[in-house]
Amino acid sequence: MRTRAAVAVAAGQPLEIMEVELDGPKAGEVLIEVKATGLCHTDEFTRSGDDPEGIFPAILGHEGAGVVLEVGEGVTSLAVGDHVIPLYTPECRECEYCLNPKTNLCQKVRATQGAGLLPDGTTRFSMLDGTPIHHYMGCSTFANHTVVPEIALAKVRKDAPFDKICYIGCGVTTGIGAVINTAKVEIGSRCVVFGLGGIGLNVIQGCRMAGCDQIVGVDLNDGKAEMATHFGMTDFVNPSNVSGDIVAHLVELTGGGADYTFDATGNVGVMRTALECAHKGWGESIIIGVAPAGAEISTRPFQLVTGRSWRGTAFGGAKGRTDVPKIVDWYMAGKIEIDPMITHKLTLDEINHGFDLMHQGKSIRAVVEY
Amino acid sequence: MRTRAAVAVAAGQPLEIMEVELDGPKAGEVLIEVKATGLCHTDEFTRSGDDPEGIFPAILGHEGAGVVLEVGEGVTSLAVGDHVIPLYTPECRECEYCLNPKTNLCQKVRATQGAGLLPDGTTRFSMLDGTPIHHYMGCSTFANHTVVPEIALAKVRKDAPFDKICYIGCGVTTGIGAVINTAKVEIGSRCVVFGLGGIGLNVIQGCRMAGCDQIVGVDLNDGKAEMATHFGMTDFVNPSNVSGDIVAHLVELTGGGADYTFDATGNVGVMRTALECAHKGWGESIIIGVAPAGAEISTRPFQLVTGRSWRGTAFGGAKGRTDVPKIVDWYMAGKIEIDPMITHKLTLDEINHGFDLMHQGKSIRAVVEY
Repeated sequence: MRTRAAVAVAAGQPLEIMEVELDGPKAGEVLIEVKATGLCHTDEFTRSGDDPEGIFPAILGHEGAGVVLEVGEGVTSLAVGDHVIPLYTPECRECEYCLNPKTNLCQKVRATQGAGLLPDGTTRFSMLDGTPIHHYMGCSTFANHTVVPEIALAKVRKDAPFDKICYIGCGVTTGIGAVINTAKVEIGSRCVVFGLGGIGLNVIQGCRMAGCDQIVGVDLNDGKAEMATHFGMTDFVNPSNVSGDIVAHLVELTGGGADYTFDATGNVGVMRTALECAHKGWGESIIIGVAPAGAEISTRPFQLVTGRSWRGTAFGGAKGRTDVPKIVDWYMAGKIEIDPMITHKLTLDEINHGFDLMHQGKSIRAVVEY
Repeated sequence: MRTRAAVAVAAGQPLEIMEVELDGPKAGEVLIEVKATGLCHTDEFTRSGDDPEGIFPAILGHEGAGVVLEVGEGVTSLAVGDHVIPLYTPECRECEYCLNPKTNLCQKVRATQGAGLLPDGTTRFSMLDGTPIHHYMGCSTFANHTVVPEIALAKVRKDAPFDKICYIGCGVTTGIGAVINTAKVEIGSRCVVFGLGGIGLNVIQGCRMAGCDQIVGVDLNDGKAEMATHFGMTDFVNPSNVSGDIVAHLVELTGGGADYTFDATGNVGVMRTALECAHKGWGESIIIGVAPAGAEISTRPFQLVTGRSWRGTAFGGAKGRTDVPKIVDWYMAGKIEIDPMITHKLTLDEINHGFDLMHQGKSIRAVVEY
């Protein structure tokens, strides 16, 4: 079949909107019609050429929602008409990782996914001249139709709006999951969240769900404070306005250090601050942000020997087929909010404008509706 | 009263054996006769002048065992004749840290202890000319008699030999505790232990107690392998004999990475190796060793984002008054071994020879018996 897609033709180039060929689903695969997709910093990281593992040409996009149009041979858990969210971290429920409750990093299709291919080592997308187009993070939601492995699709309720729940495919789950799956924040905790963008806001609402007593937000942009307060932030700190050591300031503000801190900036200097303002004896710092290639974190080992833990999270530690449907339920029940974070709606033809908005700091999430 | 002590008169000087004055216990304090004390690298770190927080003159030593001779006003948990192990990490059972099950870092007397004083801000030791001598880590077991806060003494059974259980005051508890309290290693785990000295051997026997399936020991000295094997090591790796990347070698040897790794070297480069050979998704690396002043650990944040945790431990995460008596029981029951690790016995007059043995790598533990 043919479908319309925004194709990343080469590193650093704007996406090109074009008709592409899409082969039908093979065994264990599912064809879906993408109804909406968010634009995430990770897409831009690859589009820009900063991602050393970026492969071109490719159809980017990994934060989508859609409907099953056709299932391949042997697919049993999904049927035509099901509503689904593609998962860049799949859940095969068979591999060593899926069977270990400590991790969500299913390895079943990792090698081919990393190479921009489906599990059989081929691509379903091609240009009209036959040139193969790579998949991206196993999702490729910047196409109106895509083919995804069955194990990389979460089945969700049909009454949930695509243009909101697509965000659960990455940002919402990453932020909330970091709190509830990775940190396992307890009621009454004091937390500090660095970076009040699309991930940080979801960390904040995760902390609110978890019953935190104090939720400190840290951002260089004062304009971020209002929305963060809406989502549960209790204290705002702009490091530009702090004279003296930011770690000391945050330790004092949290009454001795935070029980949990979260980096949602990707800046390795901020990651160090996040660790060091965690409470002596038991504070944990969780890295969510993706650092530039080659960047390293560092600290004195004394920070760890005196009881701080340094950890990280990918996709919020969520086992996607199991956890994503629950988060959709939470959204529909009003336990979490998404709507105020979807600041811009675009058509596929306007997708490059979405990256402009991201760079200008004007959007929290821009969503393309097909 | 007068007692004999090995006094660290100045940084970098040999200890001087001399008669010193010792005042009796004030309220909340206990006078003990030290029967035996181990010599630990931390004593040497301070004696040598490398410890930026070292204070002189001082009576070092923090790995002792002895008998209560006199109790100060208000002391209720100890009586004359009780056998005790001094605790450089006390357990007041009242402070925010003691009441938190996640940490053992009691803060009740931290400030004065760090300043080489007892909790009232004074010292009980002085030279015969009246010059005050500082306490060290709240213990000062390089004196035949010492005064220690009640909250810094673990009461232990009377049939346990002082010249062995003194080692539980630091090395044994630090190593075993890192496994059972900090890492909480599960049965069937695969572990890697870096550094097969007095701490590393106790990590190994902790791993054996915890039911590990694989216990890899790493040391640059082949001569360490025999003793480590005795304590439960299943595989020995000398990095000098590994061609290629040591991380890749250890990941392969452990079938994908270790569930838990432990640094008992204090070398920040080794700490990085220990983190990076931990298993993707769930591996935890525990820093035990004390790094040189100013040294920093570093890694790519990707190592944490893909599921590794970087943590540390002090005194093996043990709450001393509660846990140390249990470890003494384990020794007496034969669940752990100490005797083969006590490689040298010295008199107080020979104490400087003990540091020579340490530098020469000839001793695991040298113990001074009074």
